[in-house]
Amino acid sequence: METNSSGKNFCVILAGGKGRRLWPCSREKMPKQFMDFFGTGRTQLQQTFDRFSKIIPPERIYVSTNQVYAHYVEEQLPELPVENILAEPIYRNTAPSVAWACYRIYHHDKDANIIVSPSDQAVFNEEAFHENVLNCFDFVKKNDCLLTMGVKPTRPEPGYGYIQLGEPTELADLYKVKSFTEKPERDFARMFMESGEFYWNTGIFLTKVSYLLYCFRQILPLVLNPEDVFTMEDELAFVKENFSRYPNLSIDYGILEKSDNVYVFRCDFGWADLGTWHSIYEAMSKGDGDNVVLDSEVIFEDSRDNIVKLPHGRVAIINGLDGYIVAEEDNVLLICKKGDSSALVRKYGSEARMRYGDDFV
Amino acid sequence: METNSSGKNFCVILAGGKGRRLWPCSREKMPKQFMDFFGTGRTQLQQTFDRFSKIIPPERIYVSTNQVYAHYVEEQLPELPVENILAEPIYRNTAPSVAWACYRIYHHDKDANIIVSPSDQAVFNEEAFHENVLNCFDFVKKNDCLLTMGVKPTRPEPGYGYIQLGEPTELADLYKVKSFTEKPERDFARMFMESGEFYWNTGIFLTKVSYLLYCFRQILPLVLNPEDVFTMEDELAFVKENFSRYPNLSIDYGILEKSDNVYVFRCDFGWADLGTWHSIYEAMSKGDGDNVVLDSEVIFEDSRDNIVKLPHGRVAIINGLDGYIVAEEDNVLLICKKGDSSALVRKYGSEARMRYGDDFV
Repeated sequence: METNSSGKNFCVILAGGKGRRLWPCSREKMPKQFMDFFGTGRTQLQQTFDRFSKIIPPERIYVSTNQVYAHYVEEQLPELPVENILAEPIYRNTAPSVAWACYRIYHHDKDANIIVSPSDQAVFNEEAFHENVLNCFDFVKKNDCLLTMGVKPTRPEPGYGYIQLGEPTELADLYKVKSFTEKPERDFARMFMESGEFYWNTGIFLTKVSYLLYCFRQILPLVLNPEDVFTMEDELAFVKENFSRYPNLSIDYGILEKSDNVYVFRCDFGWADLGTWHSIYEAMSKGDGDNVVLDSEVIFEDSRDNIVKLPHGRVAIINGLDGYIVAEEDNVLLICKKGDSSALVRKYGSEARMRYGDDFV
Repeated sequence: METNSSGKNFCVILAGGKGRRLWPCSREKMPKQFMDFFGTGRTQLQQTFDRFSKIIPPERIYVSTNQVYAHYVEEQLPELPVENILAEPIYRNTAPSVAWACYRIYHHDKDANIIVSPSDQAVFNEEAFHENVLNCFDFVKKNDCLLTMGVKPTRPEPGYGYIQLGEPTELADLYKVKSFTEKPERDFARMFMESGEFYWNTGIFLTKVSYLLYCFRQILPLVLNPEDVFTMEDELAFVKENFSRYPNLSIDYGILEKSDNVYVFRCDFGWADLGTWHSIYEAMSKGDGDNVVLDSEVIFEDSRDNIVKLPHGRVAIINGLDGYIVAEEDNVLLICKKGDSSALVRKYGSEARMRYGDDFV
């Protein structure tokens, strides 16, 4: 399995999601990854780019997104070469996105190593993150495998994916993966955490691009074949024509969970998924009454455990409310019990669209 | 006491309130009486005017308001002669408003009878209302007294004022007043209702204008003396100069409750005060889950007993919420437990002003 590679390190940032679980603040026209959700001055995409560009030069960073969002990427990442934006003609989840990125990178550098990352995560210790990433690159350079980055759970979070550690390897902190579990029941999440055997799946993974293309050929029908060599123009035309033939699958479900050659690195950077109201609530520091206020003006009275995000200029007065999402953007106000709300939030977005039209999604 | 009058019937509509108990939808710049709060196409002021103008000609209807709101009255009631708008230079509650109106009307017709009415009430049976009003006018024409209109309680409402019936008179449904009670404890309100002896105080009352001026002289120091005869110009200058010297008292507290010559007529028109979120909730017909939606678009799930008002164009999705006011207007969103919220709502308005400035009140 040792196949030491001389290839360079590349990064693929996945930024094509519609962000519907953060509706109504994240909207199809402007999903969360393009928003400065927390009022820090940088969007989630920019923060993800900033994090990687410290260890990987911009010309080796690719951003995968839908064509309707490509202009956001261009505007928000002026350092990124425009040709590194992979603008998909149709939404097809992350497996097709990663496949296209692999094809593109493979034709730049057949020996490339890649790290694939979502664009809606918080990393609290960037130094540790960089060290972990470079260690992981070292490993995939030497081994044909898929290597996921795991983080020790700090709470029994039912909203996350879990990776069960299998056989240890010669390297400290590096294990074979025994199983993946997506969004367990709360009781299982508690058992997982207490066992010490389960790690949060950050969704970030590393591999050689050639090996991932091999996995695609084995596991998923491949639309873009690495043997095909197109001009850029032909490639785009080919993608436009054929991308919709890819199955609508996530890279986790479509490849990582199907492979028996997956490893996990126990990472020690602080981490949080920022994809749902619940996960943001959990990740953020709490104010009085354990309320979380996102870049908004709120007066609370007799209220606890809420998360609130309002448009700039709006003030909310909240009395006697416990454990709710209060989120407003443009033409929609959502007031919703916080627990396990992700499915609800998506449903409400669809319902609002059905009743009132596309402007409400 | 019988002093049959040949005077005509006049009406005084009180429309100077700031509507702070319906904050944030009612704002100091545009209080509730000038709003089409229920989306009927007519504002509360217009509806009150419409109700009276069927039995009293517009030239004998006066509207008392603050000078900053006078333009609303002019715009909303084009049928009303402009000189019938009594535009006060400073907010001084209703006793001073009624005193000025009395002075003005007295100089048109020393024998005038007047009906004084708030502008934030619902009357559900207008025919019965007109009949009751004309019967009341008949009585005050013949008797120097103050005559309040009472309505039989349909629920033990702690937010209303109550009038206790005293000695009956020769006329059916007409009683001396034994006592006034403003906003009783809930248990008292229940006893009041069960006793059959207490009626809701509508705040509407009738009298001869000369008699009311007499009461003012007896009970409250009078700034505008009926003996003074001014030109209109001088009157306005005098009011501007002296109005602030009036005590800040309601006509109920300042005159009606202090007089021992007050009667109550048991009226049978359906009636509701529309001055608070709670009273509006109680007055309105309920939808699914006993929610009340005021001219707004709301999707409820697993939610009961709420009252919601939103700006046009906004949609709210409300999940798992029971017994709240959800009210939004311009730059403020209020989410507040419904029970006994009036004092809170006023307080929040003040707090928002203190923190964020005058635009928030």
